[in-house]
Amino acid sequence: MSNTFGKLFTITTFGESHGEGIGLVIDGCPAGVELDLPFIQSELDRRKPGTSRITTQRKESDSFELLSGHIDGKTTGTPLGFFVRNTNARSKDYSHIKDIFRPSHADFTYHAKYGIRDYKGGGRSSARETLARVIGGAIAKLALRAELGVEVEAWVQQIHKVKLLEDPKEIKLIDEYQQATRCPNPAIAKQMYEAVDAARRKGDSVGGIVKCRIKNAPAGIGEPIYNKLSATLGAAMLSINAVKGFELGSGFEGTEMFGSEHNDSFYMEGSRTRTRSNHAGGVLGGISTGEEIYFRVAFKPTATIMQDQATVDSHGNEAVAEGKGRHDPCVVPRAVPIVEAMAAMVLLDQWMLHKARMAM
Amino acid sequence: MSNTFGKLFTITTFGESHGEGIGLVIDGCPAGVELDLPFIQSELDRRKPGTSRITTQRKESDSFELLSGHIDGKTTGTPLGFFVRNTNARSKDYSHIKDIFRPSHADFTYHAKYGIRDYKGGGRSSARETLARVIGGAIAKLALRAELGVEVEAWVQQIHKVKLLEDPKEIKLIDEYQQATRCPNPAIAKQMYEAVDAARRKGDSVGGIVKCRIKNAPAGIGEPIYNKLSATLGAAMLSINAVKGFELGSGFEGTEMFGSEHNDSFYMEGSRTRTRSNHAGGVLGGISTGEEIYFRVAFKPTATIMQDQATVDSHGNEAVAEGKGRHDPCVVPRAVPIVEAMAAMVLLDQWMLHKARMAM
Amino acid sequence: MSNTFGKLFTITTFGESHGEGIGLVIDGCPAGVELDLPFIQSELDRRKPGTSRITTQRKESDSFELLSGHIDGKTTGTPLGFFVRNTNARSKDYSHIKDIFRPSHADFTYHAKYGIRDYKGGGRSSARETLARVIGGAIAKLALRAELGVEVEAWVQQIHKVKLLEDPKEIKLIDEYQQATRCPNPAIAKQMYEAVDAARRKGDSVGGIVKCRIKNAPAGIGEPIYNKLSATLGAAMLSINAVKGFELGSGFEGTEMFGSEHNDSFYMEGSRTRTRSNHAGGVLGGISTGEEIYFRVAFKPTATIMQDQATVDSHGNEAVAEGKGRHDPCVVPRAVPIVEAMAAMVLLDQWMLHKARMAM
Amino acid sequence: MSNTFGKLFTITTFGESHGEGIGLVIDGCPAGVELDLPFIQSELDRRKPGTSRITTQRKESDSFELLSGHIDGKTTGTPLGFFVRNTNARSKDYSHIKDIFRPSHADFTYHAKYGIRDYKGGGRSSARETLARVIGGAIAKLALRAELGVEVEAWVQQIHKVKLLEDPKEIKLIDEYQQATRCPNPAIAKQMYEAVDAARRKGDSVGGIVKCRIKNAPAGIGEPIYNKLSATLGAAMLSINAVKGFELGSGFEGTEMFGSEHNDSFYMEGSRTRTRSNHAGGVLGGISTGEEIYFRVAFKPTATIMQDQATVDSHGNEAVAEGKGRHDPCVVPRAVPIVEAMAAMVLLDQWMLHKARMAM
Repeated sequence: MSNTFGKLFTITTFGESHGEGIGLVIDGCPAGVELDLPFIQSELDRRKPGTSRITTQRKESDSFELLSGHIDGKTTGTPLGFFVRNTNARSKDYSHIKDIFRPSHADFTYHAKYGIRDYKGGGRSSARETLARVIGGAIAKLALRAELGVEVEAWVQQIHKVKLLEDPKEIKLIDEYQQATRCPNPAIAKQMYEAVDAARRKGDSVGGIVKCRIKNAPAGIGEPIYNKLSATLGAAMLSINAVKGFELGSGFEGTEMFGSEHNDSFYMEGSRTRTRSNHAGGVLGGISTGEEIYFRVAFKPTATIMQDQATVDSHGNEAVAEGKGRHDPCVVPRAVPIVEAMAAMVLLDQWMLHKARMAM
Repeated sequence: MSNTFGKLFTITTFGESHGEGIGLVIDGCPAGVELDLPFIQSELDRRKPGTSRITTQRKESDSFELLSGHIDGKTTGTPLGFFVRNTNARSKDYSHIKDIFRPSHADFTYHAKYGIRDYKGGGRSSARETLARVIGGAIAKLALRAELGVEVEAWVQQIHKVKLLEDPKEIKLIDEYQQATRCPNPAIAKQMYEAVDAARRKGDSVGGIVKCRIKNAPAGIGEPIYNKLSATLGAAMLSINAVKGFELGSGFEGTEMFGSEHNDSFYMEGSRTRTRSNHAGGVLGGISTGEEIYFRVAFKPTATIMQDQATVDSHGNEAVAEGKGRHDPCVVPRAVPIVEAMAAMVLLDQWMLHKARMAM
Repeated sequence: MSNTFGKLFTITTFGESHGEGIGLVIDGCPAGVELDLPFIQSELDRRKPGTSRITTQRKESDSFELLSGHIDGKTTGTPLGFFVRNTNARSKDYSHIKDIFRPSHADFTYHAKYGIRDYKGGGRSSARETLARVIGGAIAKLALRAELGVEVEAWVQQIHKVKLLEDPKEIKLIDEYQQATRCPNPAIAKQMYEAVDAARRKGDSVGGIVKCRIKNAPAGIGEPIYNKLSATLGAAMLSINAVKGFELGSGFEGTEMFGSEHNDSFYMEGSRTRTRSNHAGGVLGGISTGEEIYFRVAFKPTATIMQDQATVDSHGNEAVAEGKGRHDPCVVPRAVPIVEAMAAMVLLDQWMLHKARMAM
Repeated sequence: MSNTFGKLFTITTFGESHGEGIGLVIDGCPAGVELDLPFIQSELDRRKPGTSRITTQRKESDSFELLSGHIDGKTTGTPLGFFVRNTNARSKDYSHIKDIFRPSHADFTYHAKYGIRDYKGGGRSSARETLARVIGGAIAKLALRAELGVEVEAWVQQIHKVKLLEDPKEIKLIDEYQQATRCPNPAIAKQMYEAVDAARRKGDSVGGIVKCRIKNAPAGIGEPIYNKLSATLGAAMLSINAVKGFELGSGFEGTEMFGSEHNDSFYMEGSRTRTRSNHAGGVLGGISTGEEIYFRVAFKPTATIMQDQATVDSHGNEAVAEGKGRHDPCVVPRAVPIVEAMAAMVLLDQWMLHKARMAM
């Protein structure tokens, strides 16, 4: 079940970077959700490659086929099947790396685990798989909005050493730099763009940080002890390609605070119990507080670079991983909708688990 | 199943801070593992409260009863039941907080989720539950050693603003400061001790960071896509009380590197494929590389402080959470064996999953 | 997880026939359920050995200790731990069979699977484990009654060749034969008693059939395709020791009917959609219809008999399994509360899954 | 996860009778299994409709598209996606039943559960879904043969009142009656054919029994207590459309035997521990004995008949379910490969679980 995510609302994904395409089955979606197909496509378009100079030049329409699970424009409670065909796969590009273990890619570890691997563009380990997550997330967003009014929104907070220090009030992407970097501050977005473009011109790559917040989640969501909301959000994010870190609320910085500073005092806002600060990041004891849930996700620099690198092949020979092919010099902007998608699926799943346990 | 951890090697835990005690069932432990009971007790003793001035003064022997699953000193493959009775629970200490939501504790969220809660010492949300994890981890360590020679070791890398900058070669705890703080460097350990003790004297608390490394794990362990070794380790750590962040390998710092710096080149060491650097932290594509697996876990400052705090109660009235009772001014040293335990259980579980998929 | 039953409402059980005792953890029980402890004990008493001449003479009070998960007499939504100590284990009785594979017991298969086994009274494979199920079932019954008014009731329909042909209107056990056989018809009960007693006197054993019905289950419970209510009920029953068959509704007999006879016509009873006949047994397409759910469970004759039997031992030598020790000449009457318990747990679990998927 | 079957080797299926088609994702298939595509097609052909006068006249080629998970003709350990397009769906045939609850179909229960349903040919509840199971079973058979030499074979043992009393030595289907009925005895096959055809001519339907045996399964497979081989086989069979009963080994008949008759004595055959009789059906204590595993599955008569039936619609009005459309007067022969497929998947899954627990 390693290709299934979730407990009650689940996605099971399949497909490779240069095979027939990428597909998924959504199981456990509540019945009666309006299937807003243009919205699903718009979510995919936010992840799509080839939309600016600083992403991979692979051209894919990423248009999906909906195969099951609906009638009269609504979900029926039965599984939704989706498939997105690969149209711009260029397998020849990758023949030179058939036996080569590219540094910091999963070539070696898939070989070590399975004894056989699809070497075409990373096969199953390619980030192309994440489009399935975006479809799952789009459905989860539709269900969450309809049932709870929950909204999930993420943005790029850091690329390489360029950092956005303040959280945006709203996410508006109005110019080419913001579009390309998914950073809502125009000035910082431009600096980020330049940082990526400079790396790209040197054949190098950079990483960064995505921040995400979830609004309007009611208190009470999350399953202690081992299925805490914090733990499931963390696992979700750490399952995304290139992610090396996750922190909720005060995170690593909070380790340098005193308890008396860090504690979030409760007060009443009408009949609603609220906290004055929110170092908790909206989760206490693994359960949502009703405050905004926020967290940060660290992405390493893209492993593919346009420079020759010393490595070995699957026969134990020294080899060179050549710097060619298409790639993203920075995956962080394209990761924004993926982070949102995973967060939305976690929240819906945990909400459904919570409903199961409520007294009628 | 929110109180069960793992897929094939699982622990299911129960019990509260001030109830009868804490118990667990270990299911899926391979048959034939030698049950080294003194080792299990020694692991519990590493987590035990009351061993220095800077931990809670609650006195518990934490001696366990083994209830099932063994014969002639070995595991039989059937479930191992364990129970540890609470002996120093003082429920009266907590009567003043029966209806009060202590800031940054789980009182409010348990109330929001369940409509009823065990208010005695945090009930189920108390870190006393973690002794069950330590027992599970001890068994996992025994199985891992016997089968793979794997060793898991953690230490305190930071308390409040005192940081150990270099990784220790070996973990030797030779003096009272090291014992008390679980930091292997004597000078830094003393500074950490003083930082905790200073906070304690002010009725305040501090947080910190635990670092952990896993040695001798073979390449090939981990289940992509959603059950990656990185994701399951992250979820395990984020399920521990007070944890707010997790990073594997280069983590958040790695976001400021170039790909050409961050990539780990492969080379051959005899017949073994190795990497010259290890920014990956021993995991690529969610699967172990055979290099050392290392990660860091961020703990917030303890929520319980010896200061009065403004808050509300479950009836929506303003209230004061009084600063009294027993508590740890810093949980980080006691968290070290818990981090190790969770890591050992993840690794054994993933190793068993890997064995299931191997060709015979 | 092979010792865990259920998806949302789960029991995880541990313990052996002649070890410390039998325990269980109930996870996922809704919060706020009134813990009627005398009811739980009364359910255990229905399963208890030694209550008549035709059961094993092992004497056990089967009194339980409740270890966690409650406050002020109600469940808190956290795990309920239970432990029942063995008090009348006589390990010496079994020393003569340490290496011997008793015919039609699980000695050989546990040895084949694990390479080691607890030979004392069958160890983990003993039916003594089923008392944990009865506790889980008692809690499930309490939750189902409170939330839905559901009642689960079973009785003995056949022992050896003595059959009760008509379903009872109500289950009243008024005399010693009915008490001993759990057959609600006094005349048939007496015949059953005599059949068991005759077998007992010859040192032999007999099997039989338990029938169970679930009243007041609403329509809509059950999870197609693979987690159908029929499939989960079947798995639950087939997990009970000595069970060799399960049939729902018309079952095996229904295979000889025409569709035109077997089909259950719908009609309206007020606003409720009902069926005139109920060959379906209350389940269509894996989902409850709102009609009575009923099914039958076949138990083989007890494997332990008081006759010497030719067999082999774990060293490959010929051996004799001697006919001594305590045993039940017929397990079917004591299986009645176990069948009910498993059915109640399945229904509650499926009801909770159903609630998770409902629109709010 | 109700549309996922299995724990380590899993299928997740989607699709409806009259939608785009039927698909599945196989997750957890071991790497390196030779993908014998003609064998997969031949298994589908055994289930295909329209091959004789006594099956539905719906014409489907049932040719599959393999979408992922393979390279150079072998599995890679990543998910295998399959899709089979519907080509002969005739939605108009079903417009007259849009709001009508057909007797003994799942129309009413899906409506009760989900509040919305795909009314076209039964939608998700149609037996057309079972072709996905046959694909999964074909892959499982290939893996089992390669690794263990296990063979799974089923046949029709009863249709309506025509019964095959002796188990066949081998399954050869040499004439049209055997082909059509999947009964290996020519004389009985002819009687069965006539029984179905007689029912068909009257617009009626019949049920029957499939028997299945698994050869060459080693001892030790199966996970007690709740995931017993008997319980998982039972759940697998009871998840098939129209199944109302399951029995392993002596089953319901065995309830009338004495223990002294029913017990299977052990003896040595060389170094192999065997039993002289096999009333157990190859499973003791939920674990395989190494003897042949055999069981029987009861199918009710097809719910669709060519006769008008009184019923109600979703608005609570009386209605008539008209006797028209295409249907199988008896599904039992087409169920044979489905029974085999489910059995093969259970065995492979349990074998993989067993491997996980073995010492290396």
